[in-house]
Amino acid sequence: MAQRVLTPRSESYPQWYQDVVAKAELADNGPVRGTMVIRPYGYAIWERMQRELDDRIKAAGARNAYFPLFIPESYLRKEAQHVEGFSPELAVVTHGGGKELEEAAVVRPTSETIINVFFAKWVQSHRDLPLLINQWANVVRWELRPRVFLRTTEFLWQEGHTAHATREDAHDYAVRILDDVYTDFAVNILGIPVVVGRKTEQERFAGADATYTIEGMMGDGKALQMGTSHELGQNFARAFGIQFQDPSGGNEFAWQTSWGVSTRLVGALIMAHGDDDGLRLPPRLAPVQVVVVLVKGEDGADSAAAAVVRDLAAVGLRVELDDRTGTSFGRRTVDWELKGVPVRVEVGPRDVANGQVTVVRRDDRSKEQVALEGVAARVLAVLDEVQSALHAEALARREQRTTDVSSVDDAVEATASGFARVPWDRIREAEKDLNASAVSVRCLQREGGDLPGSSSEPGLVATVAKAY
Amino acid sequence: MAQRVLTPRSESYPQWYQDVVAKAELADNGPVRGTMVIRPYGYAIWERMQRELDDRIKAAGARNAYFPLFIPESYLRKEAQHVEGFSPELAVVTHGGGKELEEAAVVRPTSETIINVFFAKWVQSHRDLPLLINQWANVVRWELRPRVFLRTTEFLWQEGHTAHATREDAHDYAVRILDDVYTDFAVNILGIPVVVGRKTEQERFAGADATYTIEGMMGDGKALQMGTSHELGQNFARAFGIQFQDPSGGNEFAWQTSWGVSTRLVGALIMAHGDDDGLRLPPRLAPVQVVVVLVKGEDGADSAAAAVVRDLAAVGLRVELDDRTGTSFGRRTVDWELKGVPVRVEVGPRDVANGQVTVVRRDDRSKEQVALEGVAARVLAVLDEVQSALHAEALARREQRTTDVSSVDDAVEATASGFARVPWDRIREAEKDLNASAVSVRCLQREGGDLPGSSSEPGLVATVAKAY
Repeated sequence: MAQRVLTPRSESYPQWYQDVVAKAELADNGPVRGTMVIRPYGYAIWERMQRELDDRIKAAGARNAYFPLFIPESYLRKEAQHVEGFSPELAVVTHGGGKELEEAAVVRPTSETIINVFFAKWVQSHRDLPLLINQWANVVRWELRPRVFLRTTEFLWQEGHTAHATREDAHDYAVRILDDVYTDFAVNILGIPVVVGRKTEQERFAGADATYTIEGMMGDGKALQMGTSHELGQNFARAFGIQFQDPSGGNEFAWQTSWGVSTRLVGALIMAHGDDDGLRLPPRLAPVQVVVVLVKGEDGADSAAAAVVRDLAAVGLRVELDDRTGTSFGRRTVDWELKGVPVRVEVGPRDVANGQVTVVRRDDRSKEQVALEGVAARVLAVLDEVQSALHAEALARREQRTTDVSSVDDAVEATASGFARVPWDRIREAEKDLNASAVSVRCLQREGGDLPGSSSEPGLVATVAKAY
Repeated sequence: MAQRVLTPRSESYPQWYQDVVAKAELADNGPVRGTMVIRPYGYAIWERMQRELDDRIKAAGARNAYFPLFIPESYLRKEAQHVEGFSPELAVVTHGGGKELEEAAVVRPTSETIINVFFAKWVQSHRDLPLLINQWANVVRWELRPRVFLRTTEFLWQEGHTAHATREDAHDYAVRILDDVYTDFAVNILGIPVVVGRKTEQERFAGADATYTIEGMMGDGKALQMGTSHELGQNFARAFGIQFQDPSGGNEFAWQTSWGVSTRLVGALIMAHGDDDGLRLPPRLAPVQVVVVLVKGEDGADSAAAAVVRDLAAVGLRVELDDRTGTSFGRRTVDWELKGVPVRVEVGPRDVANGQVTVVRRDDRSKEQVALEGVAARVLAVLDEVQSALHAEALARREQRTTDVSSVDDAVEATASGFARVPWDRIREAEKDLNASAVSVRCLQREGGDLPGSSSEPGLVATVAKAY
């Protein structure tokens, strides 16, 4: 495109990101520091994410519920590591209904503490287990260095909370969510390949025995933690008294998990696939999969465009008609490219006279003429190609930008352009030194990629990177 | 049923309501006064409401977005009537991230103020109008006399906010939402007939020029305000500077609407249709429309039950299998009746030997034998009958319990059992006296039921009732 709308990534990646968020009308900054307004197009992306995730969460047997926003301050203190981890980030309500409250209420930073008070009431017998709950909600963590979608004081997310009769059952469920919900969604819907591993003890969730993570590589080579699933052991069960009678009549503490993904996934989507002209949305996620652009409303082009829209909708596609012929074609094209709509069908009088339309891919800009009667079939095929191509491109980038190294210094150097893979034994003692260079261990894997049973297993590989 | 699970309505209607909420596992009270935990079955009902409402809201052209939970205190003060109306109910965040905030933040009681700050940025020209936004969110209003679902300190809702170029367009849209979204949903999905009217000046929304409402009659004859749609005139546009350039180049303030329904609709559903055995859910809303109860897992009954479930799912029904044969059949029946599942299909060895099952309606408990191969077709028909029957029953109750009167005293007396209809001219001056008797004017209508253009029109009829 001739018009330059965004700062090029090569000039300033952070400014490019801000420009995309503003120009594609995804979000605005809110008035209270670190909060954001998610605009309709950004929210439509989030709604599509919610739908895909919710289907997978329900297929994994969890049911949605809703717990209060306000948590008594005393609840937070019940699990020692948890309160230590979250205290610096809390927003506190001190006044309600015109009076000072007897006990201040915390705005939930996550809901383990309030949910487990109810789990303690609901779980009595082994027959009540597993208890599998999910919640879609807003949470608040006061952010000192906010960045829209990536780190915001308030964000939207889902948080799953489960209780199980055995450690093994809890472990299996935490991994099932990681694999069947988060990894499947990231790879097959978002088109973002992920490194799946275990967090180090330093990086795990406050109150967890183990945290599993999916880490994506963004366009600048940095890592983004896209979702986490935690084994909480019996830590919260002991703190909150979640006990059940086992079949032999004894009382046991439940084993628990929690897991979540948030609106930061919108940031992941921008940075994993975006280019200098804006978003490039994977077709399975895109709120608008195809836009039919009426070039000029002459010589039957308008009725041809309407017919194309009908044909595309009839095969189940999310399609939009752009008939704003009062606005220049170039400006409209720029706008749809900014918004990352995967396929554009251009319908002009000349095309229509030839019984054709022009089909344009957003990802590589390739164009082809397609006969009017074959548009729906061809667009379906092209959308599949775009979905695969975006994933392949992101995977190729990750492979090119991942370096195997064997020392702390080499690891830090490699993170200037991407991920470093280092034997965990070589850097275990130097994790804090890495952090001093603004680099962190994103996760640990076994040699073949499997999840480690603990971070003290021999032979583990650490993926090290700068991270959002 | 032999077992008495709930307090009968005749003994104590409020206690019956509490019992239904607890025993059908809809909700629990939260730890911070007035908050609630919406349990999975209660939340499934809310999710079904959301889906039906969201489809209608999108069909009316509005798009979803999300605005911050925290609103700077100063924003609230910009519209004088608005701040006066909401100040006593506010929750205030004074501390964030371990520090006292420079400006305290209010937890949104509704979002007019924060949304209109952004409308002022987004609206420049008449081409930006109408701007039609909806938000699904939690809001907080400190409640002195909380009651679960009906009046809670935190509740879930949708709030629509729109801006238009003319007063007439804003009026038409407020009424369109009232009719095509709220009334259609209440009547055709919830099966609750509603009185549709205009609020008196005393009862309207703080900051509105006009508030329209739908009012349902509950099982005890009291009114429940189920949804409201407001014409905000230019009040917020002037306070927040929402101006647009009209086609002739002049600057005009926008005309606005806002409208919302909340989780209190779950309370409406309980009280409009519930009986002494629990909920009775209208089939179009019910999260589970049919439960297939395996009486005993013998002589092929289990495979017959599984086949029935498949047949019902195949015709698009939301169906659940209850194969908990370790629990007594009576106890399971009580449970499904509590939960209000519209149709129960009982599959037992004796039935199956005869090639039959028993189909039981929740609303009137009628039973019939249906041949196995005809179950799906028959259940579809029965569900339609239940949907109609629940609406007809609620309508008959409202008609029986609505009395035409012509004085304040008679109106108050009539509200002991239901609604009173009174000429507005007769009670206009006595509205405060009514309130002293815990009675209020629910809404005003023209003689034929149409919406009045103002509360000073002659010949209006007031519907007067005790209300939740």
